[in-house]
Amino acid sequence: MPRRKRVAFQGERGAFSEEAARRLLGDGLDLEPRQRFQEVFRALAGGDVDYAVIPIENTLHGSVHENYDHLLHFKLPIIGETQVRIVHNLIVRPGVRFRDVRRVYSHPVALTQCLRFFEKNPQLRSESYYDTAGSVKMLMEQAPEGGAAIASVAAAEYYKAHILKRSIEDDRSNFTRFFLLARQARRGRSGGSLKTSIVFTTRNIPGALFRCLATFALRDINLIKIESRPLRGKPWEYLFYLDFLGAPHEERCRHALAHLAELADLLQVLGCYRQV
Amino acid sequence: MPRRKRVAFQGERGAFSEEAARRLLGDGLDLEPRQRFQEVFRALAGGDVDYAVIPIENTLHGSVHENYDHLLHFKLPIIGETQVRIVHNLIVRPGVRFRDVRRVYSHPVALTQCLRFFEKNPQLRSESYYDTAGSVKMLMEQAPEGGAAIASVAAAEYYKAHILKRSIEDDRSNFTRFFLLARQARRGRSGGSLKTSIVFTTRNIPGALFRCLATFALRDINLIKIESRPLRGKPWEYLFYLDFLGAPHEERCRHALAHLAELADLLQVLGCYRQV
Repeated sequence: MPRRKRVAFQGERGAFSEEAARRLLGDGLDLEPRQRFQEVFRALAGGDVDYAVIPIENTLHGSVHENYDHLLHFKLPIIGETQVRIVHNLIVRPGVRFRDVRRVYSHPVALTQCLRFFEKNPQLRSESYYDTAGSVKMLMEQAPEGGAAIASVAAAEYYKAHILKRSIEDDRSNFTRFFLLARQARRGRSGGSLKTSIVFTTRNIPGALFRCLATFALRDINLIKIESRPLRGKPWEYLFYLDFLGAPHEERCRHALAHLAELADLLQVLGCYRQV
Repeated sequence: MPRRKRVAFQGERGAFSEEAARRLLGDGLDLEPRQRFQEVFRALAGGDVDYAVIPIENTLHGSVHENYDHLLHFKLPIIGETQVRIVHNLIVRPGVRFRDVRRVYSHPVALTQCLRFFEKNPQLRSESYYDTAGSVKMLMEQAPEGGAAIASVAAAEYYKAHILKRSIEDDRSNFTRFFLLARQARRGRSGGSLKTSIVFTTRNIPGALFRCLATFALRDINLIKIESRPLRGKPWEYLFYLDFLGAPHEERCRHALAHLAELADLLQVLGCYRQV
C-alpha cells in the first residue's frame, strides 16, 4: 500500500489551505498544520512532508509578498496551482439555535468580509480570533455562552460543529489562489496549458520593464500576471512577479528567458505547472 | 481663523493612518475615524470631511485591492501620497513592569509581525484583537491583568499608555503607502516630481499589455508601479494598476494617455500628486 502523502499548510485543521490541499492532491492525506508560513517551507525543505500548500494571492487582498519571499529563499518549486472560493459560514455547537447566538468569533479579516450580515443582525457582536478554523475549535472546546464562529465548511465538518447559515460573506468574488510545492520539479510535462511563474529584478530606468516584457511579446508568449514590488533600501530597483503561458523547456519560452536573463539583474524560475 | 481640516481614516484613534494624515496635512486636524474603508470614502464624497487618508499598499502584504475598487467607484482624486514605517511597540498601562506582562493583545497581523519577540519571551501569550490602536484603548479602559498591547507610538500617546519596548517588529522593512484624497483635484501643479496613478483594463491577448506599456516607453515615461489583477467572471480580462512619473497635463503624458485610451477598454486617471 502506498504511503500517504504528507502535506504542510499554515493554519489550523479545517483552514482554507486544507481545502486547497484536497483539490491539489485528493483525499487520504496526512495533513500537517503549521503556525507560520516559514515553518511550512522548512517542513518541506527538511523532508518532514512531501508537499506544501501556500496561498499566493487573493482577489480582494492582493499578493502574499511574504510567500514570494519564501519561494525565492527556499527555492522549492511550484508544481501546481488551484483556486478556492472563500465561503464564510456561521457555525455553532450542535443544538445551538440562531436566536441564542450573541457573539461571533473569527479572524478579523473574515469578520470584515461579513459586515452586511452583522448589519442585518445587530444583536450579534463580532469578536476577533487568531484563525477562522481555530475559532470553531475554540467553540467546541470551550463552549462560550451564545458563541458562534465564522469559518469554512471544512472547519465545521472537522470539529463536528453545525452550520447555521451558509455563505454569509458580502462578496462572492473572494477567491484565494494556492500553490502546491514539492522538493523536486516534475519533469517532462507537456500538453494542456502549462503556466510558468518567474521573479526578476530590473532597474527603474525608463523603458527597462518594457524591454523585459518585449522578450515575451516578441515571441507571442501570453502574460497572465505581472506585478512590480519596490525593493526596500534600493529605491530605484524593482522586483517583478510574472506568470506566462508556456513551459521553460519549450523553445520560444527558453529563448525568452535567455533574452530576459540578459536584461535582468536577477531571474529565478519559481516553477511550471498546469494552469487552472 | 481658518477652519480646521477634517480628515476621515479607517481604524481607531492612534492608527497608523492617523500618522499618515499628520504627515500629509500637518497637525491641528479634526480626525474622523471610521470603521470601514467604504465609510471613509462616503464621508468624503458626502462632504462630512475635507480629506480622506487610505492605505493602498504594504511592502509585506501587497496592494489593498478593496481601496482600488473604492477609488474606481467613488472617483475621488488622489492628491498626495506618503509612506509610514510600521513600527510595533509593546505598550502597557503606566506602572506595569515587563515582568508583570503575560498577555499581549493586538491585531493578528501585528502579532505575526513580532514572532521573534514572542519566541524570545515564551512567558507571553499573544491574544488577537480587532485593531492595534484599539488594543491600547481596551488596555486603558478594562485593565486586563498582566495585559499589554502592540501598537504605534501614536496610539500609546493618544491613550496615555506607556511604551515598555520600542520597535519589536521582526522586519524593519515594513512600510505602508497611503493616499490622500479630496473631492477636487489640485489644479496647475508643476515642478518637482509628479506622479500619476491610473487604472486600465485590457483583454488578455498576447502582447496586449506590451502594446499598452509601449504608449509610455515610446515617450520615455518612467513607470513606478505596475500590477495586474484578474477580473472575476471575466477570466481573460485584466485590470491594471499603473503609476508613472509625470502629470496628465504634460504634453508627452497627455499623448501617452490618449494612445492608451485607444488600446484599453477602460481607462481612469485616479490622481496626480507629488512623489514621495
